[in-house]
Amino acid sequence: MTLHQPIRHESDVYPTRFADHEQIIDRVDPVLWSTWTETAPISREQAESYDKNGYLILRDAFSADEVRALIQSSADLRGGALDGNEDVVTEPGSGEVRTVFRLVQNSPAFDRLARDSRLAGVAQFLLGDDVYVHQSRLNYKPGFTGKEFYWHSDFETWHAEDGMPRMRAVSASLLLTDNDALNGPLMLMPGSQRRYIGCQGETPENNYRSSLKKQTIGTPSQKALRELAEAHGIDTATGPAGTLIFFDCNTMHGSNGNITPFPRSNAFFVFNAVSNALREPYAAPAPRPAHLAHRGAPKAIAPVTGSLA
Amino acid sequence: MTLHQPIRHESDVYPTRFADHEQIIDRVDPVLWSTWTETAPISREQAESYDKNGYLILRDAFSADEVRALIQSSADLRGGALDGNEDVVTEPGSGEVRTVFRLVQNSPAFDRLARDSRLAGVAQFLLGDDVYVHQSRLNYKPGFTGKEFYWHSDFETWHAEDGMPRMRAVSASLLLTDNDALNGPLMLMPGSQRRYIGCQGETPENNYRSSLKKQTIGTPSQKALRELAEAHGIDTATGPAGTLIFFDCNTMHGSNGNITPFPRSNAFFVFNAVSNALREPYAAPAPRPAHLAHRGAPKAIAPVTGSLA
Repeated sequence: MTLHQPIRHESDVYPTRFADHEQIIDRVDPVLWSTWTETAPISREQAESYDKNGYLILRDAFSADEVRALIQSSADLRGGALDGNEDVVTEPGSGEVRTVFRLVQNSPAFDRLARDSRLAGVAQFLLGDDVYVHQSRLNYKPGFTGKEFYWHSDFETWHAEDGMPRMRAVSASLLLTDNDALNGPLMLMPGSQRRYIGCQGETPENNYRSSLKKQTIGTPSQKALRELAEAHGIDTATGPAGTLIFFDCNTMHGSNGNITPFPRSNAFFVFNAVSNALREPYAAPAPRPAHLAHRGAPKAIAPVTGSLA
Repeated sequence: MTLHQPIRHESDVYPTRFADHEQIIDRVDPVLWSTWTETAPISREQAESYDKNGYLILRDAFSADEVRALIQSSADLRGGALDGNEDVVTEPGSGEVRTVFRLVQNSPAFDRLARDSRLAGVAQFLLGDDVYVHQSRLNYKPGFTGKEFYWHSDFETWHAEDGMPRMRAVSASLLLTDNDALNGPLMLMPGSQRRYIGCQGETPENNYRSSLKKQTIGTPSQKALRELAEAHGIDTATGPAGTLIFFDCNTMHGSNGNITPFPRSNAFFVFNAVSNALREPYAAPAPRPAHLAHRGAPKAIAPVTGSLA
């Protein structure tokens, strides 16, 4: 395994993957990049809450008919509509579909969802810029055997391994199953987005092949996580199917495993500001492949309105 | 690995560990073995709730001083008071204490706790008989890396591998850390104690050596668990340190893993009715060792009252 000596870009304000230490610094970028006005797509309280906590949970953004239609689209994708497609990850034993990458390329219904003003329009507002889709996927985690996902900041990986320069990206996750505290919901540390943990541990080649299963590189120390959790607490993003969660690219998050019979599924979109397009990786030998990070010229989304049902 | 052909006792009303099938039957024993009167150690509502749900959560059974004293006793035990004792299980890497078996033999403070009328006296009432300690242990599960424990009925194992004849035992768990929905609390299926799942899979020799780490024999099928969960739902036994949980020997339970920084610790006592003393295992080649199941003549506890602080 070849280890990489990180290239320190002159302008790298978020260094990480240090050989021998961890470094915690303040974020230098805004969280909310727009000033709220009455034309904003979310309320003033919602904007302030996102700025303060680093996430926003919307439980009634979609009608019951829209949620049903999206769940049906998800079932179609998992039911074999994409057989043989290399963006589809299946379980070795059962052949069950676990992940569909490049969701917006693979599904007209989910492409339409990403471009909806309730997603792309809100992302534009939060990031104060035109946006494009950095990554998209459909996740399906079974009951009984759902594995945990350890604490991490998405930005740390996107910066180190994809070359995302600054904290001007936001994830949108639409729940396609009911999620409560017991079936391994997304856990977030409110306010953690204001601190940046440059992690200890250099990036091995092709780190993404193992990190998607179990992330070990680019995760904070137990000491740092304990301090963050004590300072900020831990909240969960729970709700019925149809719940929409926005969370900032640097909000510390993770999820426990799930032995309950109840699966978890969500459609996941990362919006990045067009002004924040990818460069060379800041701390990895080579960029991750296209299904994890869109590297072409960013094409701004024109948000659309109307029902998805 | 030698597999065992289960001995079917003539009187075995709870057969299990079948070679080729699973069998779900109704429980033939009462859950609450006493009739409630005004001299009972718990309220009528509490007795009815235990009978209906198969567990009872008491959040103010102990004073703050008592809880502090018990936490201190736990810290002393984990801090090296029992170095070299074979009842102590440590983590291979760190040497940290994970479990202290035969807790009542190893700690005067916890022996006193077991004999307290708030534990042994309540157990006597629930089981309608004198009681003795079948198993006792101090559990410490660290934060960040706490593993899940899969769904099981304790009675199924105690019957198959220890030779416990009937469902006339109850566990008492005293929380020594705060436990919320996110740090892997005990999950229980209310009402599940009324059904008995005879499991598929014969018992390997020395099954306990692996089953304490990850139970695979004596666990229900996913189909059976899904049906139980849909019929009964899933509840959690959460509360601050000092919370006392009684749960019937056949209540289906388990716990998720825990990536939060917050550890879980509890003192755990199994009370069995003296009339329900162990026989030969019902479905295993040999009984489990003494630290998992007391096999001597049952010595009835005389419950004591007074402060533990």
